[in-house]
Amino acid sequence: MKAELITIGDEILLGKVINTNIATIGERLSRIGVRLERQTTVPDEREVLAEVVAESLERCDVVITTGGLGPTRDDTTKSVLAKLFHTRLVRDETLLKDLRERYGENLPPIVLTQAEVPESAHIIPNSVGSAPGFIFEKGEKKLIALPGPPNELKPMLESVVIPKLEEARTGGLFVEKVFRTIGIREAEIEERVGNVLDKIPGLSYGLVAHPYQVDIRLFCICETREKGERILSEGEKVLEQFRKAIFTRDDRSLEEVVGEMLRAGKKTVAFAESCTGGLISKRITEVPGSSDYFEGAFVSYSNRWKEKLLGVPEETLVEHGAVSEETAREMAERVREKARTDIGLSVTGIAGPTGGTTQKPVGLVYMALSDGEKTTARKFNFRGDRERVRYRASQAALNLVREYLLEGCSGGISSDRITG
Amino acid sequence: MKAELITIGDEILLGKVINTNIATIGERLSRIGVRLERQTTVPDEREVLAEVVAESLERCDVVITTGGLGPTRDDTTKSVLAKLFHTRLVRDETLLKDLRERYGENLPPIVLTQAEVPESAHIIPNSVGSAPGFIFEKGEKKLIALPGPPNELKPMLESVVIPKLEEARTGGLFVEKVFRTIGIREAEIEERVGNVLDKIPGLSYGLVAHPYQVDIRLFCICETREKGERILSEGEKVLEQFRKAIFTRDDRSLEEVVGEMLRAGKKTVAFAESCTGGLISKRITEVPGSSDYFEGAFVSYSNRWKEKLLGVPEETLVEHGAVSEETAREMAERVREKARTDIGLSVTGIAGPTGGTTQKPVGLVYMALSDGEKTTARKFNFRGDRERVRYRASQAALNLVREYLLEGCSGGISSDRITG
Repeated sequence: MKAELITIGDEILLGKVINTNIATIGERLSRIGVRLERQTTVPDEREVLAEVVAESLERCDVVITTGGLGPTRDDTTKSVLAKLFHTRLVRDETLLKDLRERYGENLPPIVLTQAEVPESAHIIPNSVGSAPGFIFEKGEKKLIALPGPPNELKPMLESVVIPKLEEARTGGLFVEKVFRTIGIREAEIEERVGNVLDKIPGLSYGLVAHPYQVDIRLFCICETREKGERILSEGEKVLEQFRKAIFTRDDRSLEEVVGEMLRAGKKTVAFAESCTGGLISKRITEVPGSSDYFEGAFVSYSNRWKEKLLGVPEETLVEHGAVSEETAREMAERVREKARTDIGLSVTGIAGPTGGTTQKPVGLVYMALSDGEKTTARKFNFRGDRERVRYRASQAALNLVREYLLEGCSGGISSDRITG
Repeated sequence: MKAELITIGDEILLGKVINTNIATIGERLSRIGVRLERQTTVPDEREVLAEVVAESLERCDVVITTGGLGPTRDDTTKSVLAKLFHTRLVRDETLLKDLRERYGENLPPIVLTQAEVPESAHIIPNSVGSAPGFIFEKGEKKLIALPGPPNELKPMLESVVIPKLEEARTGGLFVEKVFRTIGIREAEIEERVGNVLDKIPGLSYGLVAHPYQVDIRLFCICETREKGERILSEGEKVLEQFRKAIFTRDDRSLEEVVGEMLRAGKKTVAFAESCTGGLISKRITEVPGSSDYFEGAFVSYSNRWKEKLLGVPEETLVEHGAVSEETAREMAERVREKARTDIGLSVTGIAGPTGGTTQKPVGLVYMALSDGEKTTARKFNFRGDRERVRYRASQAALNLVREYLLEGCSGGISSDRITG
């Protein structure tokens, strides 16, 4: 089954918001074997929207629209679609009652328009906001209109849209497996396994580079999931040479993987973050239940904090500087002691854009991991702007914990040649 | 001048990456008065790409493509465009030399294809990665092909694309001003000023809701920037009633605004974060130079950390719980003392999805700000999932610092009715 997505809104084209709905919907559809063939963003203009929707309906089986369902004046999706599907807007008493309950006395008159619905459309209830979604049908074709805010869209996608599409799905099944890696370059993967993967009948693959991470995607289109999985497992054998670099084979994030390894190994961790400024803590606590293994962190941004609150000796800071292997080691050891965790992890570096020197350029980052017996340090020279240096450092730091949990602590220092 | 954007890549449609290039390019073009009229994502398929590019070139003056310029097999943009513009691929010796210098001995053969360029195209050098960009011209129309990775694309956009488009720009100028607000609802803004703004000749407006933030966009299309700015200033007068809620009129982030206020007021700040897990620290340190006013933070995720390292009395934790006004106050006061800053800010709450009770449901968040003399607390019941509760809490916490710097410390506690 083929689908297209139309995202609606001036704010997307003007760059006022980053549209995450494309990824949410694309990913979710692909998991049930519905392929998103095209995505178009149109401005809040009735004629353009009507034209683009009509064209998409010609090309594919399912068209999903997002946005333009709110109560304000530039929200025109509902009336454009009603016209296109030859139906009229009527007031829905259930929705009206819901709105009255939600807003109480303070119901702004403008919100009342949310209770007007296209007569022939199926209503998708919105458990989070006030704008319902709609499903229009015309022969075999479906148009599904969802609100733009991701927190409203996601529950509606899960509860109504996906079950409805799974029911209607026909044709080949899209089967996929993703291998996320850290520590190998995109071109190196292509060189080492590209030709071999190409020779496996029915298998396709793709590489997606993220900051300090490359995802290897194996996929195929098959009559049955079993057959698809057999083909993918042929490809998976080829990828075994990257075993150490692969941190997940089931689409989990690095922070989830590290968290599960910590939980499984009954280990606790605490961080001392300087240049990453809390990013690593923020990432590890994105996972529900992370309090089982994460005790806390010192975001020791100033030298005073490193010295007085964390306990890095003044001599170390003066002699080697805040960005040095020695300071990183002290930070990891001191945070572990203070937090009484199994593992202490530290990061210190120069995120830029200022603060770099010839000897210590922007992108230079030291990190260390201490388990109380040994402390391993690592040195990086990351490319990129402030945001990317920080993000790459957080990736490398979480990966340092992962490698420790796999292999233990070497006690030495190593430099990493991967910087991207 | 009208533009369209074509983003290329299976990984976007499959939801493997969130495409931030749409926002980057849309925002940057709008600032020079070039309006992005449409954006399309196409898969890595030659025929679809050729068709969509041809259609876009019919409709507008400038087409920008992103992606598909890398060395791997699914990168086909270069050859599709060469065919469309009736030119051939030739080897560029300068690019070849650059590649040899960059990769040295280890130059993978596959990377050599990066030195092949469409003969009639103008080359846009890539200072970060190995894939150059291209500008094709056909009469008055331009096609600009850029690589997909945002860190490669951005410098190329700034250094070559924007200057080139500014040179060629004709027609009305798009003039815009954005007022970002915290503390008022979208529907309330519409109700209070919608009709008034509508009556100002030539003025358009739009509202964009973000988590715990609503942006009011005023814009117009005008012959001169001066005339456009006069129209916008009429609208700005109407918005003065939201003066307190507006935290920026020039597109800055909340963390930038708070940072500049701290710097201007020569104040320093330290955080004690529990449920936000480092997010507020991460945000404030995203701004270069934040070490001038940010000392550091305790990410006191566990009760032990709150008690032993931060110094919250055991009785407070036992009697009132970790998520309470009393604990929030202690956290703010203790972190301020330990860090010796002017301001101490704390956040403690239940981010979910688990851990909520009837009395303390998911989304309940307390925060406090101490200046050594007084401590103000605030209570919230945020809607949404873990990610949104945490982000909203970080917005509200930064806003608490902003309000303090505007008005000082009340010492009391208040509940906020805005939760979205």
